[in-house]
Amino acid sequence: MTKKWRKEFEEERSRLNEIVTSSGHLGIKRFFALDDQAYHAGALPPKVKELIGLVASLVLRCDECVSYHLIKCKDEGVTDEEFYEALNIALVVGGSIVIPHLRRASERHENMQEK
Amino acid sequence: MTKKWRKEFEEERSRLNEIVTSSGHLGIKRFFALDDQAYHAGALPPKVKELIGLVASLVLRCDECVSYHLIKCKDEGVTDEEFYEALNIALVVGGSIVIPHLRRASERHENMQEK
Amino acid sequence: MTKKWRKEFEEERSRLNEIVTSSGHLGIKRFFALDDQAYHAGALPPKVKELIGLVASLVLRCDECVSYHLIKCKDEGVTDEEFYEALNIALVVGGSIVIPHLRRASERHENMQEK
Amino acid sequence: MTKKWRKEFEEERSRLNEIVTSSGHLGIKRFFALDDQAYHAGALPPKVKELIGLVASLVLRCDECVSYHLIKCKDEGVTDEEFYEALNIALVVGGSIVIPHLRRASERHENMQEK
Amino acid sequence: MTKKWRKEFEEERSRLNEIVTSSGHLGIKRFFALDDQAYHAGALPPKVKELIGLVASLVLRCDECVSYHLIKCKDEGVTDEEFYEALNIALVVGGSIVIPHLRRASERHENMQEK
Amino acid sequence: MTKKWRKEFEEERSRLNEIVTSSGHLGIKRFFALDDQAYHAGALPPKVKELIGLVASLVLRCDECVSYHLIKCKDEGVTDEEFYEALNIALVVGGSIVIPHLRRASERHENMQEK
Repeated sequence: MTKKWRKEFEEERSRLNEIVTSSGHLGIKRFFALDDQAYHAGALPPKVKELIGLVASLVLRCDECVSYHLIKCKDEGVTDEEFYEALNIALVVGGSIVIPHLRRASERHENMQEK
Repeated sequence: MTKKWRKEFEEERSRLNEIVTSSGHLGIKRFFALDDQAYHAGALPPKVKELIGLVASLVLRCDECVSYHLIKCKDEGVTDEEFYEALNIALVVGGSIVIPHLRRASERHENMQEK
Repeated sequence: MTKKWRKEFEEERSRLNEIVTSSGHLGIKRFFALDDQAYHAGALPPKVKELIGLVASLVLRCDECVSYHLIKCKDEGVTDEEFYEALNIALVVGGSIVIPHLRRASERHENMQEK
Repeated sequence: MTKKWRKEFEEERSRLNEIVTSSGHLGIKRFFALDDQAYHAGALPPKVKELIGLVASLVLRCDECVSYHLIKCKDEGVTDEEFYEALNIALVVGGSIVIPHLRRASERHENMQEK
Repeated sequence: MTKKWRKEFEEERSRLNEIVTSSGHLGIKRFFALDDQAYHAGALPPKVKELIGLVASLVLRCDECVSYHLIKCKDEGVTDEEFYEALNIALVVGGSIVIPHLRRASERHENMQEK
Repeated sequence: MTKKWRKEFEEERSRLNEIVTSSGHLGIKRFFALDDQAYHAGALPPKVKELIGLVASLVLRCDECVSYHLIKCKDEGVTDEEFYEALNIALVVGGSIVIPHLRRASERHENMQEK
């Protein structure tokens, strides 16, 4: 994994999203909009929503969903301490089966902190 | 479901926890302690941690875990708006398979708000 | 389980859905609409879509989702043979962990066939 | 839960299995046979296989599957210490989301030990 | 991903299946046979069964199972419209956690349509 | 996959574990210790515990967890016959969705047997 993982991840995600949306299926398009809106500011701030999305992705064990919320958490200013407390909740709720995803999430998180 | 669900839930939970801990298995006892500590105040406040626990329980579809965090969320002062925004994230992440749990969570939440 | 399970199931489902929708959360309301539309006639007929929904609910092991699609399958004219072939796919894909749900689905299906 | 849970569980299981097998679907019938044979004595003794089945059922969170293997474990002479060590593995692998199932499994296990 | 993904996928699958079957375990061999037969023509046509298999694989989030049924769906003549309606059901049932698999499935599907 | 998969797997695992533990989060550190201890000799021998861990990892479909327990099973002297009987239980419990993981587990197992 290179330091450029974020850029590569975002480009691949955009490329594939275009394939999906070019299908023209209205239900899928609307679902994508609902997904986006669920993390917008409301009664709960985006930072809290992204932490919730991160932990939900970890306990459901989806690396790509984890990477997506990792990036959002960084952009929302989640600190190292907050990040590892969220990871700890995911670990306790989801068990050791979560560990491989927690390891990769930690590496990607550390990688984004480097200058 | 009666208004007393919280009391009945907590009593049954305590009764069964005693059966588990009376087994004397040290690993299980230590896991229960780690589980408890994961939601204590730290860099993230308990309210945020309980919301995370609530959504993680919903996407993993465990009614009892949901009920446990519902109670904690209420005690931490989670508002109606915050509650339904968290439920919405769980629904979008986990899909329609979450709906039966979301329905029951909503009823239990409303039930706790009544005087 | 009584022969009236369908009526009781539908009434309870309506009652709880009202609690959810009375929350007024727009995202949840829109998700419920997308969920509904996904099974409407399109390139694939409703009968095929309900069979897909039934098997998806079985492999994800949600009794209420199974019951919902059981009713829809019956209304779409799914025959006994078609029903058990769908159940067999769910069993092979999802394994023996699906069996308790398959048992209850079979009972509810047979119950609906009785005069 | 009464002391008679085992008898009630086994009768209900038989009753529903008859509904399934009376469907006459050959694939389902063959799957049930494969399921049965997987726990027969082979290179691994039935006791080890039942412990494996118990933990697999716990991490997949199926109460009925857990109850089935609990009974088999008892009949194979699994001791209290062995039982709780298996439960501990299930808890560590599957996380706190397993706890409600672990609680009920412990009660049912203790219940079977009583004279 | 190259246009040759189908060929590479099928070759790797065959190579690994040989390793499994050369173990000589009768139960595994019989399970593979049951798996194969579940999608044969019966009361439901193979096309419907493959669509069911595709959606079940998507909601359980197994890329290889998805790829397998994608190929079968193409061979059974599933159209673009039918394909995206099935994907939409998988998305609604399984939630946003399905999206990474839906993206890859869409790319592989489009790839197979190209001349 | 080369014959050196075990060495590469163990080195990568160590490298990532260091990233996680260097976070200094006490809860995560304690969870890792509980995870380790769960497989130590007790009333059940390590070989049985590793077989349980292997099957739990297979039904939860985590390749890395499977690889970890594969190595441990080999070190505990699990024979070919015992290995495939455990795999068969995982297959029956978890269904065809387990097959891609079972294939890779078989290849890695065979690979470790070669001289």
